[in-house]
Amino acid sequence: MAQARSSGKRGKLRVAVLGATGYTGVELLRLLTRHPRIRITVVSSQQFVGKRVGDVYPSLAERCDLLLEPIEIAKIVPRIDFAFAALPHETSIDIVAALIERGKRVVDLSADFRLHDPDIYAKWYRSHNAPHLLREAVYGLPEIHYRQIAKARLVANPGCYPTAAVLGLAPLFAERLVRGLALIDAKSGTTGAGRSSSVEMSFSEVNENFKAYNVGVHRHAPEIEQELGEVSRAPISVLFVPHLVPMNRGILSTMYVELEKSLGDDELSALYRNFYDRASFVRVLSPGFFPQTKDVRGSNECLIGFRWHASLDRLIVITAIDNLVKGAAGQAVQNMNLMYGWPEIEGLRGAALIP
Amino acid sequence: MAQARSSGKRGKLRVAVLGATGYTGVELLRLLTRHPRIRITVVSSQQFVGKRVGDVYPSLAERCDLLLEPIEIAKIVPRIDFAFAALPHETSIDIVAALIERGKRVVDLSADFRLHDPDIYAKWYRSHNAPHLLREAVYGLPEIHYRQIAKARLVANPGCYPTAAVLGLAPLFAERLVRGLALIDAKSGTTGAGRSSSVEMSFSEVNENFKAYNVGVHRHAPEIEQELGEVSRAPISVLFVPHLVPMNRGILSTMYVELEKSLGDDELSALYRNFYDRASFVRVLSPGFFPQTKDVRGSNECLIGFRWHASLDRLIVITAIDNLVKGAAGQAVQNMNLMYGWPEIEGLRGAALIP
Amino acid sequence: MAQARSSGKRGKLRVAVLGATGYTGVELLRLLTRHPRIRITVVSSQQFVGKRVGDVYPSLAERCDLLLEPIEIAKIVPRIDFAFAALPHETSIDIVAALIERGKRVVDLSADFRLHDPDIYAKWYRSHNAPHLLREAVYGLPEIHYRQIAKARLVANPGCYPTAAVLGLAPLFAERLVRGLALIDAKSGTTGAGRSSSVEMSFSEVNENFKAYNVGVHRHAPEIEQELGEVSRAPISVLFVPHLVPMNRGILSTMYVELEKSLGDDELSALYRNFYDRASFVRVLSPGFFPQTKDVRGSNECLIGFRWHASLDRLIVITAIDNLVKGAAGQAVQNMNLMYGWPEIEGLRGAALIP
Amino acid sequence: MAQARSSGKRGKLRVAVLGATGYTGVELLRLLTRHPRIRITVVSSQQFVGKRVGDVYPSLAERCDLLLEPIEIAKIVPRIDFAFAALPHETSIDIVAALIERGKRVVDLSADFRLHDPDIYAKWYRSHNAPHLLREAVYGLPEIHYRQIAKARLVANPGCYPTAAVLGLAPLFAERLVRGLALIDAKSGTTGAGRSSSVEMSFSEVNENFKAYNVGVHRHAPEIEQELGEVSRAPISVLFVPHLVPMNRGILSTMYVELEKSLGDDELSALYRNFYDRASFVRVLSPGFFPQTKDVRGSNECLIGFRWHASLDRLIVITAIDNLVKGAAGQAVQNMNLMYGWPEIEGLRGAALIP
Repeated sequence: MAQARSSGKRGKLRVAVLGATGYTGVELLRLLTRHPRIRITVVSSQQFVGKRVGDVYPSLAERCDLLLEPIEIAKIVPRIDFAFAALPHETSIDIVAALIERGKRVVDLSADFRLHDPDIYAKWYRSHNAPHLLREAVYGLPEIHYRQIAKARLVANPGCYPTAAVLGLAPLFAERLVRGLALIDAKSGTTGAGRSSSVEMSFSEVNENFKAYNVGVHRHAPEIEQELGEVSRAPISVLFVPHLVPMNRGILSTMYVELEKSLGDDELSALYRNFYDRASFVRVLSPGFFPQTKDVRGSNECLIGFRWHASLDRLIVITAIDNLVKGAAGQAVQNMNLMYGWPEIEGLRGAALIP
Repeated sequence: MAQARSSGKRGKLRVAVLGATGYTGVELLRLLTRHPRIRITVVSSQQFVGKRVGDVYPSLAERCDLLLEPIEIAKIVPRIDFAFAALPHETSIDIVAALIERGKRVVDLSADFRLHDPDIYAKWYRSHNAPHLLREAVYGLPEIHYRQIAKARLVANPGCYPTAAVLGLAPLFAERLVRGLALIDAKSGTTGAGRSSSVEMSFSEVNENFKAYNVGVHRHAPEIEQELGEVSRAPISVLFVPHLVPMNRGILSTMYVELEKSLGDDELSALYRNFYDRASFVRVLSPGFFPQTKDVRGSNECLIGFRWHASLDRLIVITAIDNLVKGAAGQAVQNMNLMYGWPEIEGLRGAALIP
Repeated sequence: MAQARSSGKRGKLRVAVLGATGYTGVELLRLLTRHPRIRITVVSSQQFVGKRVGDVYPSLAERCDLLLEPIEIAKIVPRIDFAFAALPHETSIDIVAALIERGKRVVDLSADFRLHDPDIYAKWYRSHNAPHLLREAVYGLPEIHYRQIAKARLVANPGCYPTAAVLGLAPLFAERLVRGLALIDAKSGTTGAGRSSSVEMSFSEVNENFKAYNVGVHRHAPEIEQELGEVSRAPISVLFVPHLVPMNRGILSTMYVELEKSLGDDELSALYRNFYDRASFVRVLSPGFFPQTKDVRGSNECLIGFRWHASLDRLIVITAIDNLVKGAAGQAVQNMNLMYGWPEIEGLRGAALIP
Repeated sequence: MAQARSSGKRGKLRVAVLGATGYTGVELLRLLTRHPRIRITVVSSQQFVGKRVGDVYPSLAERCDLLLEPIEIAKIVPRIDFAFAALPHETSIDIVAALIERGKRVVDLSADFRLHDPDIYAKWYRSHNAPHLLREAVYGLPEIHYRQIAKARLVANPGCYPTAAVLGLAPLFAERLVRGLALIDAKSGTTGAGRSSSVEMSFSEVNENFKAYNVGVHRHAPEIEQELGEVSRAPISVLFVPHLVPMNRGILSTMYVELEKSLGDDELSALYRNFYDRASFVRVLSPGFFPQTKDVRGSNECLIGFRWHASLDRLIVITAIDNLVKGAAGQAVQNMNLMYGWPEIEGLRGAALIP
């Protein structure tokens, strides 16, 4: 009802994409221009104010020809029902707070509302301006928090690494099966760093190279610990080591855990399949089969493979997602769908681009 | 009417994808699983007979779970109204001929029916088994032959290089503006070579390398000459030099021509825009702006840019397509749409995957 | 003395490169054509018999213009003092045995003589033809076995993954500091698979993709366990998971271990630096600094970085090598240098190619 | 004599590398650390002042451990005999002028002294501060200007594109065989743009993409025209269109020319081979064979292939170089060798890194 009242003349939800020219923003536009229930009415950009979307991204010309505008809350509010905020960390807070205050629902794709505890946020980012929203915001991992998402005003869209890690380990933690430390050796394509102008992310530096970075000290670790801890109903720890792969899209997360008890392949399969019984976008592969990032390039799916090494007493779980889709824009659209009671897959039907 | 009669119980056209596990085949499946007017009823494969599509390409699991079967005409014919043949050159002829004989309409994606002249076919491939079909087949470049395509039984889907070259030069040849030889310096991603197991196409050989191949002696040259000659209503010659780019998808074709008379940017713009007035998938950029292959990755568009060098008396035209979409599977779907009187863009609405 | 007597007229060691046109072979030629103490007198190839090296690899034309010949022991033996065997696994055994029998010294780059235990070889490969050589062969990791290498007739050049893993963990195992299972999450470029014509290794499949393979069941695991077990003077186990990176050269090995006692950064630094005190090609970085594969592209170095996570009680060790140099051809030259009492770095002075 | 007198205590030429941390600078260091006749005594950097070379590029640690210093002429002059200036265009002029004034010989790798005509320089860059040096500087293409280079105080090292283009076309222009406009369709790896922090050169933008840029308006065109005009002893014009390849190193230049008279393959071969008779680094392939960029990756060679298309009356010439070696640092070392009467290949013996 709320959305029905606030919708525009054509009966479609009026949506803003704030930060429309970053990689997450343009991916939102790619997905949203095929979403049958919404209408994009506002697109913002800092760098390209006054240009049309199609001038910056020719692939979107004729699909979305809005003018890119700066973010002026008073001008935006009357023209939208809902906003995606795809803005840099730490600059998102005030804008999101202003929109929520004016009655808009928001999916925020930055890290600004993902951590519930202001102290942990302060430790990894800086002091938080709007701690009340930190408490209110729902962590937007639909496979776990779909009920709260449906009612939320503010959804904090998960980080790309946490999405891949939490989906791979949550079924185990939910059953309190994990003994000791979970090791997460993650590998990501370059778009995870956003539309970057640093030497480190230049082609000449990244191509024909492979490296680890932020070894054991990455901001996504507390996010993973928060979510797996919640699922587990107890504090938990992970060791998280991200690596940079010379490719644009994709995260492969290789995870190593010891189990409290020995489980056969069938039991593990049943455990995972039950946990994701109603999940539209999670697919559990047969034991011993593992996903590749190309299986999900451009799609909103998360594929999960696992192998139990009885002789070594270790379970290996590998997940693959597209960091820009399930790890960002696609998951944001999925969250919007849940918030408005629409089919979860609306706007997210596209298969992966192979090869 | 024809299609209404032949359609299956759900009123959708029953479609076969022959050669479904090659790159063109799997791209057809990606596009067709979102096409609202058809139903895939047969998928064939040589290598993967007996497996399901989703076993070979996890990205298609749950989207198309048909069993891959060998091509047995008698078994296939009763279950289809229409076929895409994405088979290797020289093996396609007999299968396509058999389907046509049994009243099915076909879009053939091989080179087997593209050349009208059996002697030219014989020179570049081998002696042709079904020369009557060579004469009947319509060259499936919708921007030029849409009327004939609409009525055709057999459409020969163009090669990827010819699509990029002909779309870039046809407006000039149609006005007989080209003086002397047209030079076509083309660059393609690796999927143009198909799902290949040669050392030459292995990652270690192609990555961090750039080369020309088949310099001036590529099989696509006669196809380009046939089409531009037809448009020009006179025999014409091109010099065609292809190069291999270390990327998966995309063709960029840089073309150099002398003009019979000097034309300003405005006249050239008008010429191109008029020629492609009704074309859904061709976009002419402003003078001096040039496309990149990423602008069309995964989409069915062809972007055209040009610059007239007055002092050097040369026109440079650059086109960009995705070789697997507008250069193969997408164009094949576009041809099917025209054959059945459907909107040309049905099943082809997706924007490019950026980045 | 032995080498002085057997050397050719120019006083240089006469060297054969068997399997000269595979990636390891051509890398041997690149290095050996700059080695001042040897002369290449025989190059063999299966695929390119009768061609000159420079016809197959233009980069070597004018540097090595020998004719590629088939391997005929009787014809080769009189013309060489020493052989590098860069042949496929399982075909190397008989050829190496024949050369050893005729008094030649050999560095074998296949897996055929790396495992001391014929049963373990049989489990991972097949039954071994020459078990006496399996016992005689010295595992050619110079940083550990330099004394035995100096006297060896037959040196089994280590695998690329084992080189990266063992160099990273040996100092810890030598002190029996590792508690429980060592986890080795390794990432390799594509040349590790050799000059391959499989679809799986084609550019279109590997590019813009990342995957794990042979998860926990790779043939290099027993090799790693053998060497670390020897260093440790006790049987040990590792869990080894390799991944394929879309790049040509380089291995990055990320390793996770628990320690028997807590060690500070200074102690760990001292431990590693002492262990590699006399190693020409191993460089230990300052605590918290980690290598990238590009730091060693084309060079024979192994860089080691580590970080102790006190709160999580885990040590992370990361090593980087070029799989074709320190992981294959470079290490083989290093072994030859030791076998003849030459400076270890002869022929291996080149710095990495950046970028 | 000059060099003997000015050399340091160890009898080696004392060399400065100004701009040592850009890609050209680090490539100079890679080559020079293996050059037996020189000693690097000064390395400068703007960004990394106070660090050691090995801190910035671990691959050079232990090979060159000098401190990076700012450029202060008075401090540098007493410690050097010779300088490589690998500085940004337009900032090089004053520094080079100061060094020349103080009696040092210089190879300048910027564009600042390549164009003889101050007006042309002003048109493409800005007004030139030191036009007298513009007239004095020798264009450092050794295959053409070796005599002048030997005596020069100041050598202007050619651009990467001009090197590839001029070496491919000079034999034809020297014989005045070219009719009309020469078309140069060039393709370069990303390091040609230097160590860049622009979004345009970021991995996510360049990878899986191909584009033309500065179409027909690139600064290297006047340089090519100057050199080919000189060789031809008459003003000439070229149409130059560069493209960006998703790879780090390499230029492939595809060139199209009409000839004044028809020449057979043998005549063309003889023409090219005679012209490059004494050239150490140019290799002319057999007619119909074409080079790939990987053939020269890391080496100072230029490979030339050609095919005469009699029926179309066009000659296709394709050249391949490594833009950082023959297109920059390697050619600079070659120039230094000529300036001091040393063997041309000193320090440049390395074969290409394959693959």
